[in-house]
Amino acid sequence: MLTLAIDAMSGDRGLAATLPAARDFLRRNTDARLRLVGDRGALQKFVAAAGVEPARLEFVPSTEVVGMSDTAAFALRKKKNSSMRVAIDLVGRGEADACISAGNTGALLATARFVLKTPPGIARPAICTALPRQNGRTYMLDLGANVDCSAAVLLQFGVMGTKLMYCREGVAKPTVGLLNIGAEEGKGNDTINAAAELFKQSSLNYVGFVEADAIYAGDTDLVVCDGLAGNVALKAAEGVAQMIVGTIREEFTRNRIRRAAGVVAKPALNAIKTRLDHRRYNGASLLGLRGTVVKSHGGADALAFRCAMEVGLNEARQNLARQIETALTAPAAPQ
Amino acid sequence: MLTLAIDAMSGDRGLAATLPAARDFLRRNTDARLRLVGDRGALQKFVAAAGVEPARLEFVPSTEVVGMSDTAAFALRKKKNSSMRVAIDLVGRGEADACISAGNTGALLATARFVLKTPPGIARPAICTALPRQNGRTYMLDLGANVDCSAAVLLQFGVMGTKLMYCREGVAKPTVGLLNIGAEEGKGNDTINAAAELFKQSSLNYVGFVEADAIYAGDTDLVVCDGLAGNVALKAAEGVAQMIVGTIREEFTRNRIRRAAGVVAKPALNAIKTRLDHRRYNGASLLGLRGTVVKSHGGADALAFRCAMEVGLNEARQNLARQIETALTAPAAPQ
Repeated sequence: MLTLAIDAMSGDRGLAATLPAARDFLRRNTDARLRLVGDRGALQKFVAAAGVEPARLEFVPSTEVVGMSDTAAFALRKKKNSSMRVAIDLVGRGEADACISAGNTGALLATARFVLKTPPGIARPAICTALPRQNGRTYMLDLGANVDCSAAVLLQFGVMGTKLMYCREGVAKPTVGLLNIGAEEGKGNDTINAAAELFKQSSLNYVGFVEADAIYAGDTDLVVCDGLAGNVALKAAEGVAQMIVGTIREEFTRNRIRRAAGVVAKPALNAIKTRLDHRRYNGASLLGLRGTVVKSHGGADALAFRCAMEVGLNEARQNLARQIETALTAPAAPQ
Repeated sequence: MLTLAIDAMSGDRGLAATLPAARDFLRRNTDARLRLVGDRGALQKFVAAAGVEPARLEFVPSTEVVGMSDTAAFALRKKKNSSMRVAIDLVGRGEADACISAGNTGALLATARFVLKTPPGIARPAICTALPRQNGRTYMLDLGANVDCSAAVLLQFGVMGTKLMYCREGVAKPTVGLLNIGAEEGKGNDTINAAAELFKQSSLNYVGFVEADAIYAGDTDLVVCDGLAGNVALKAAEGVAQMIVGTIREEFTRNRIRRAAGVVAKPALNAIKTRLDHRRYNGASLLGLRGTVVKSHGGADALAFRCAMEVGLNEARQNLARQIETALTAPAAPQ
C-alpha cells in the first residue's frame, strides 16, 4: 500500500482545500494511505472524525507554514519544521512514497532538491504539467524552475517528459517539439538550434520546432523549452483565458435581456467551463528528483487538490522517478 | 498631405484584402494619399475604377512577391523588384511617408533595416503592438525581431515603446514593466536583473517585474521583453484564444437545443467576438528605423489591413521615427 505525505497547511485555502480533498481521495483510492502534515489541533480532530481505518490516515505535526513570499533560501534555512519540509522529509526517510504540496514553488523546488537530491547529471528538477487543447492535452516543461538551460539540459527535459507521458497517459512514443519563435530551421538562438541537433540524434520522437500557439492548437504531445519561455507561455495563456471568461461574464450580465439569454445559454456555458476547467489539469510534476513530489496550484480547491494527489499516487505507483533516473544514466538508449 | 506606400501583393489574401482596404482608407482619410505597389494589370484597373482624384491614388508596378517561406536573405538579395521592396524603397527615397505590408516578417525587418537604416546605437528594429485586455490595451515589445537582448537594448525598447504609446494612445507617462517569471526582485536571469537596474535609473515610469498573465489582466501599459519571450507570450495567447473560441462554437452547435440557445445568445456572443476581435489590434510598429514601417498580420482581411494603414498614417503624421531617434540619442533625458 502506497503512502502520500500531504502538506496540509500550504496553498491559498490551506486546510479548507486539503482536508476535503483528503477525505475524497481516501474514498476513491482504497489502496492508498495518507499522512497529513500540519497543525496538530486541526488534524487530530479531522482524523478522529474521518471514520477511516487508522492504518490509512494519520497525521504528522508541524509548527510552521512556508509563506508565499518566503524566499527559497529562507524556507530552507529557517523553517525546518514547516508542513512542506516535514512532508518532504517523510519521502526522504522512506516513510512516504510521494509528497503533494500547494505551497510556494521556489521553496518546494529548493527543499525537494536539498532533501531528496537529484540523480547524477541533473542540476535542478524541472516542472512539467498538462495543458488543455481542444482535443486532448499537451505536456510542457520546464515551466519555471530552470531559467537558463543548455542544449543538453533541454534534451534531459525531453527524456523526462517522454517518461512522464508514458506514466500519465500511456503514450510510449509521444511526439516532442522544441518551443521556438518559428518552425523553420535556424530560427531562435544558438542554444535552441544546438538542442535541435541533440534531439535529432536521440531516440525521442522529435518532430522539430513548434511555436507557442501549437501548445494549444497543434498535435505535438510534449513541448520542451527553458523555464523562462515555459513560464511565459503558461502565464500568458492563463491571462488571456481569464480575460475571455471575464468578457463572457460581462456580456451575459450587461442588461436584463442579456441575463435572460445567459439563462438559456447556461448548459452550453457550463459545458465550456467544465472543458476549460484548469482544476482538472492540476498537479505539476517535479521531474529529476530521487523521489516523487507534485506541486498543486496555490489557488487549488478541494477538487483540484485531490487531482494533484492522484497524480502523485500514479507516479509513485509506476516509480516514475526511478524510471527517469535509469533513462538519464543510460545515454545510449534514452528511451 | 502624407503618402502611404502599400505593399498590395503580400499577405494571405493579397489584393483581395489590400484593395478594398485602400478604398475604405481613402474614404475615411481625405488628407492622405496612397501609392499601391504591385501587379500593373490589377492595379491599373483598380485605380481607373476607384473614382478617386488622381493625386490621391496612384500605382507603382512591381514584378515579384516575397513568399511566406522566403528567407530574409533571399528576399533581400534576389527579389529586388518585389512589392515589399519597392514599397520600402519609396519611403527610403522620400516618395512616401510610411510603408504598410502584410508580408513575411523576417523579410520585412531585413529589408526595412537595409533600405531605411537604424539610428546610431540601434542594431535591429523591434516589433511592438497593442494587445487586448478586459479594459483597455497593453503594448508589448519586442515580439520576435531580437532573440538575444542585452539590458541596454531592453532599456531602448522601454524608451521606444513609451514614445509609441504617446503617439498611439496619447499617454505621456505609461507604466512600464519588465516581463519576468515572478514579480519579486532577483527572479529571472542576469540580463533581466541588469535591465531592472537600468530602468530604475531611467526617467521611464518603471513599475517593476510583471508576469505574463499581467499582459492580459494587469494594469501595466507597456511590457518590455526580448523577442523570444514576447513571441512566446503572443503566440501562446493566440493559441488559447483560438482554442476557447473553438470550444464555444462546438458547445453551441452540439445538438438542436444547443443551437437554439446559440440563437438566443447570439447578441452576447457577437459582442464578445467584437471585443476580442484581433483585427482591431492589427498593425505592429517596427520601431528603431529611420522611417515608418507597419507590419499587418499575414491573415488580415480588408478591415484589419485598413487598421494597419491607419496606424502607419498616425505614426507618419506624428513623426514617431524621428521622435524615437531623438530620444535615444539624448541619453540624459530618454523621455
